[in-house]
Amino acid sequence: MQGYERPIGVFDSGLGGLTVLRALHRRLPCEDLVYFGDTARVPYGTKGEATVRQFAAQDAGLLVGKGVKLVVVACNTASAFALEHLRRTLPVPVLGVIEPGVQAALAATRGAAVGVIGTSGTIRSGRYQAGLEKGGLDADRIVARECPLFVPLVEEDKMGQDMMRLAVWEYLQPLKDAGVDTLILGCTHYPLLKADIGAFMGKGTVLVDSAEMLAEAAVSLLRGQDLLRRDAETTTGGMTFFLSDLPWKFAEIGARFLGQRIENSEVVGLDEMEAAGKSSERGTT
Amino acid sequence: MQGYERPIGVFDSGLGGLTVLRALHRRLPCEDLVYFGDTARVPYGTKGEATVRQFAAQDAGLLVGKGVKLVVVACNTASAFALEHLRRTLPVPVLGVIEPGVQAALAATRGAAVGVIGTSGTIRSGRYQAGLEKGGLDADRIVARECPLFVPLVEEDKMGQDMMRLAVWEYLQPLKDAGVDTLILGCTHYPLLKADIGAFMGKGTVLVDSAEMLAEAAVSLLRGQDLLRRDAETTTGGMTFFLSDLPWKFAEIGARFLGQRIENSEVVGLDEMEAAGKSSERGTT
Repeated sequence: MQGYERPIGVFDSGLGGLTVLRALHRRLPCEDLVYFGDTARVPYGTKGEATVRQFAAQDAGLLVGKGVKLVVVACNTASAFALEHLRRTLPVPVLGVIEPGVQAALAATRGAAVGVIGTSGTIRSGRYQAGLEKGGLDADRIVARECPLFVPLVEEDKMGQDMMRLAVWEYLQPLKDAGVDTLILGCTHYPLLKADIGAFMGKGTVLVDSAEMLAEAAVSLLRGQDLLRRDAETTTGGMTFFLSDLPWKFAEIGARFLGQRIENSEVVGLDEMEAAGKSSERGTT
Repeated sequence: MQGYERPIGVFDSGLGGLTVLRALHRRLPCEDLVYFGDTARVPYGTKGEATVRQFAAQDAGLLVGKGVKLVVVACNTASAFALEHLRRTLPVPVLGVIEPGVQAALAATRGAAVGVIGTSGTIRSGRYQAGLEKGGLDADRIVARECPLFVPLVEEDKMGQDMMRLAVWEYLQPLKDAGVDTLILGCTHYPLLKADIGAFMGKGTVLVDSAEMLAEAAVSLLRGQDLLRRDAETTTGGMTFFLSDLPWKFAEIGARFLGQRIENSEVVGLDEMEAAGKSSERGTT
């Protein structure tokens, strides 16, 4: 098989990264996509740096073992803590979700403040803030906020309901007060909150959807490295799903993020995860 | 060291089981307590049966490796899915949280319905319901409800706030409508919700605190097997904490559950967890 015929790999701490898979599939319908969701150990957003880095190495190692031509880190927390490590150790290109979001926000802001919201891990890592500053934004024009209840509320399908409105109000009022004109949705669960967040922030605030930006960046990277399929006219790509656990609400939550039913899912044992991590550490995959 | 001088081991998926440790320490201040919280893989309540059983075997194996005289499974989900497996494979007695809660509820009910609330895993396992039926309660007097948002809301300290009131109303209205006179709090996070739940259900409903009942059962078991310390007058027991990850809000959340600051905590690597699981499977610990 030619290099460009190999699938694109996407991993996330759980099912949230399916928003990235969906965006990728819309742009590149002929490419084969392999998804890994670490549903046995989800979430990553509350967990420490060393743990997240170790999990991410196993997740990426598993995808490399499946022969992918590119590893897309759909998880913001894993991008924050493990991207450099993965780039150093993996034999294929690796794309994280933070850089594309930062670039899109820098392009969108019209001179007011830029907001960024995410899990505790993502926000406390300071990676989005550092990226925005490096891109020329003054520190006092950056407002970051961790929103730990958004993930469980999305998973429980509370969009548009009072509980979600309360959470949106609590987390986003300080960003509204600061007058942000651009808001980075720094978690793959948050695209499902666009309506709730948009209604609260008002039309003057551009919402940067990290899933869309990451898919865009993946297309550019593959094109730049001449790794896009050449039979785009005649081929329809497949999607394959690997998970470390089959959670109770898998079908329901999965369909919500992917926008369609998930077929062909396979559960990967923890032993296989450990082995994938070890082989990726050794760089022998 | 004599058998009865060995510590008592308690494990949970995360920090919620500290409510059990606190109850045990209050009853048995002279006993040494060893706690393991699987903070790297928390929560268990959304995850499938096979995954939870594998995690629980590792957690318990780690405690056995620390020389405990009793393993207390503070996690309701792990009790639901792994108790029989652990009893079959471990060389020390194992106590789960479901049976004591069931007994307390059977003793407390005054002829109306009994409610049980917990995570998706605990409720879908049907273990509480089966225990109540086995204890003589008709199936139509049992009302079970999964309350997936209670855990994140407790971890975010929303007790007494509007968001918690909305969740309590949504989850518990059907139990109130069914006229339950006894409600089992089937998750170690829920004791922190006693005020919110009690205010909603009213004084006519007895709340069965699974942490208290489990501590009570541990005292009985140790007394029955002559495994209580004999120098209770002159000794003060210590508490040691092992965790698989140091989460971002560890100090804050830990203190909330334990009622005091956590000292002497040590992070256990995933490799050590794997090894603990393997040795406990082989029964060689």
